[in-house]
Amino acid sequence: MVENISDSETSYELNPNLVESVLSAIETEDRALLKQLFKDIHEADIADLLEQFDADTREGLITLWGPDFDLEVLSEVEEKIRDEIVSLLHPNQIASSVGDLESDDIVDIVEDLETKQQDIFLGALDETELAAVQMSLNYPEDTAGRLMQRKLVMLPEGWNVGQAIDKIRSSENLPEEFYHILVVSPKIAPLYQVSLGRLMSSHRNVELASIADGDFRTFPVLEDQHDVAYAFNQYHLISAPVVDENGRVVGVITIDDAMGVLDEEAEEDLMRLGGVGDESLTDRVFGITRQRLPWLLINLVTAILASMVIAQFTETIEAIVALAVLMPIVASMGGNAGTQSLTVAVRALATKDLTGLNSFRVIRREFWVGLINGIMFALIVGGVGYFWFGDTILGIVLGLAMVVNMVVAGLSGILIPLALEKVDIDPAVASSVFVTTVTDVIGFFAFLGLAATVLL
Amino acid sequence: MVENISDSETSYELNPNLVESVLSAIETEDRALLKQLFKDIHEADIADLLEQFDADTREGLITLWGPDFDLEVLSEVEEKIRDEIVSLLHPNQIASSVGDLESDDIVDIVEDLETKQQDIFLGALDETELAAVQMSLNYPEDTAGRLMQRKLVMLPEGWNVGQAIDKIRSSENLPEEFYHILVVSPKIAPLYQVSLGRLMSSHRNVELASIADGDFRTFPVLEDQHDVAYAFNQYHLISAPVVDENGRVVGVITIDDAMGVLDEEAEEDLMRLGGVGDESLTDRVFGITRQRLPWLLINLVTAILASMVIAQFTETIEAIVALAVLMPIVASMGGNAGTQSLTVAVRALATKDLTGLNSFRVIRREFWVGLINGIMFALIVGGVGYFWFGDTILGIVLGLAMVVNMVVAGLSGILIPLALEKVDIDPAVASSVFVTTVTDVIGFFAFLGLAATVLL
Repeated sequence: MVENISDSETSYELNPNLVESVLSAIETEDRALLKQLFKDIHEADIADLLEQFDADTREGLITLWGPDFDLEVLSEVEEKIRDEIVSLLHPNQIASSVGDLESDDIVDIVEDLETKQQDIFLGALDETELAAVQMSLNYPEDTAGRLMQRKLVMLPEGWNVGQAIDKIRSSENLPEEFYHILVVSPKIAPLYQVSLGRLMSSHRNVELASIADGDFRTFPVLEDQHDVAYAFNQYHLISAPVVDENGRVVGVITIDDAMGVLDEEAEEDLMRLGGVGDESLTDRVFGITRQRLPWLLINLVTAILASMVIAQFTETIEAIVALAVLMPIVASMGGNAGTQSLTVAVRALATKDLTGLNSFRVIRREFWVGLINGIMFALIVGGVGYFWFGDTILGIVLGLAMVVNMVVAGLSGILIPLALEKVDIDPAVASSVFVTTVTDVIGFFAFLGLAATVLL
Repeated sequence: MVENISDSETSYELNPNLVESVLSAIETEDRALLKQLFKDIHEADIADLLEQFDADTREGLITLWGPDFDLEVLSEVEEKIRDEIVSLLHPNQIASSVGDLESDDIVDIVEDLETKQQDIFLGALDETELAAVQMSLNYPEDTAGRLMQRKLVMLPEGWNVGQAIDKIRSSENLPEEFYHILVVSPKIAPLYQVSLGRLMSSHRNVELASIADGDFRTFPVLEDQHDVAYAFNQYHLISAPVVDENGRVVGVITIDDAMGVLDEEAEEDLMRLGGVGDESLTDRVFGITRQRLPWLLINLVTAILASMVIAQFTETIEAIVALAVLMPIVASMGGNAGTQSLTVAVRALATKDLTGLNSFRVIRREFWVGLINGIMFALIVGGVGYFWFGDTILGIVLGLAMVVNMVVAGLSGILIPLALEKVDIDPAVASSVFVTTVTDVIGFFAFLGLAATVLL
């Protein structure tokens, strides 16, 4: 019964027919068609479309869409092409519709714009909105202060459900969306919050305090957005107030923004482990080249280091050329085993699962895993060495080098990220290089060194 | 002014003092102390504590906590230790408190338990709850049907705000938390939804239809949870109904569950790229060893393949041993450049940013990036080769091999994941092996082959 549902394969990729139609609207400069096509498309999808077009098509689209351009697209589009888009828009266009955006979206858009474009935006805001946006911009990037929205619903202590409902229903200036009401002290310190669902399902004479959320948390304005996202995910928060240095409420963060941050941070860790910085698909060739270069340079240094180890053993290699054939196996297996151990450690550090409490146990475990895998692969590669080159001692040397390198790989994969975390360096950024340097150097040294000692 | 806030460094790691106290409570079997310590601790943090303890301490904790054990901890704790914990609990304990859990949490807990433990749980449910849970369990794992909660607030078409509020306020059986009311047709097909915030801020005689959410989406029960999480993040959804094969509403998914899925999926991609499967810090040595083995075996095969390439050139190496010293540089640089290109591609595929629309442009870009970086590094390593070994031709050969390998690396880093995606293999799982095989084989072949042709 359940198997024959056919439309369960929604994939959220952009519909190719839509893309075709948009391209032809741009081609024929058919503004009415474009407007028609975009009528039911979410701004996030229009943003994706803009990102996937090349710069010329993008310009054609913005120019054609012109007066109807939806500013919300700007908060969905990648930072890197925002400047480009804003400079294609007419300042009046921005001025006329910037009022529709929430203060957190404006902050999100404005924070990365160049000064000229930023001024156009800020100039279009009314006084209250401008004050809110500028206040957020005063907080450092990637903090709770940048993430929060200013508008929220606050009530004083001691009220009951009936009073709260009546007050909300008679308020004029409510946020566009809200999920909780916040109860604050006379000094605007947050006390507890009540979800609208709970409020709606309680009798009028129930005290607000008695239906307060069990999981209530507040964030300092300067809290790192990574920690904010972590807390939302860990404690299943939906919205939570932000407080300033005096403990006064200054805004509210909602889960959809926290989810966006969680997604960004996951991307960052993945990219850093892969040795790529903050690059995106819309970057151009030179931008990408420049970003990938430093990592490749570091890798070159470590590769040369490994070569220097090999250079110590040229006589041994000249005597037994099979060593040159087999040596990449030891290094490559060590590199892989190290990356495995490292990946687990970096993720566990990011999710705060690897702590002082269990790190010793995890280190010990990596030692044993390295040793067991090392012995198994020693037997395999030892056999390969023996059957390939008909040399028992060569097989034994290869096997021993494998055990040494896999143990070292496992240990460095956990010890290096732990050490980097201790000195406040992001283990995702730097661990890879160190680990592969260690496994290359140890791998070549163990194999060639043993061979030189035993075989010559 | 903003700099001197000292408490902005909240880190959400478990408080070491708390951990100490819990350990001493277990040691002295002091149940009252434990209860006191856990009074204000979120279940998610208790779950973290359980994960970080070793198995014996975990058993001590569960046994001591015994009758007060909070079942919500089970839905927060890693799947891998759930069985262990459930088997330590007394069935009566489970029966007496399982009623406090939401149906989606029960599904989440029960789906991975062994049959015996599962029966204890299901046996403790009342009839309605049991039906709801079993219905969810009938849907395949990792689908919207497993993620949804059954209870939601539905209203018929044509009502206004006043009617809706009165109806909700007089209902007895509301969900514990809800953020939207869903308007459905007489056949229970979802029509639109209204957020509670919007409902509360509208006049009583306003039609519900006129304050409906602009971004309304429904999910088929069989939709993949990855796509559900993607849509929540892309369209900033807070909650969305799930419909069965006949288009009838069967449940609702809320953003906190979608956020959890997004986090899991990010972890999966990262781990797969690092060549580790579904392992966790609580796994034991043999579990880990077994999980990492297949990946290492595949790597061994590719390493031997690379060795076989080198074996073709033993005469060349015997003649010029400098080749053995320098050859890992070419392979290592190619491997790194390939991983960079691959990481970007895998992430872009996961976020649906790399599509038919821009893939050709991205491929072309990788070619140019590879070429430019290749030429730059060719100059550097050519220089290194020349100054180290005083051999111009050797430097040129090294440089040329570098250009070839970096271009191949860039292209295979994008083409291989694209090809895997086309044939429905997760590019995160398999791409790495293919890419490094290509860069190793091409790296050694280009360098040694050129050397054999030019230098001998």
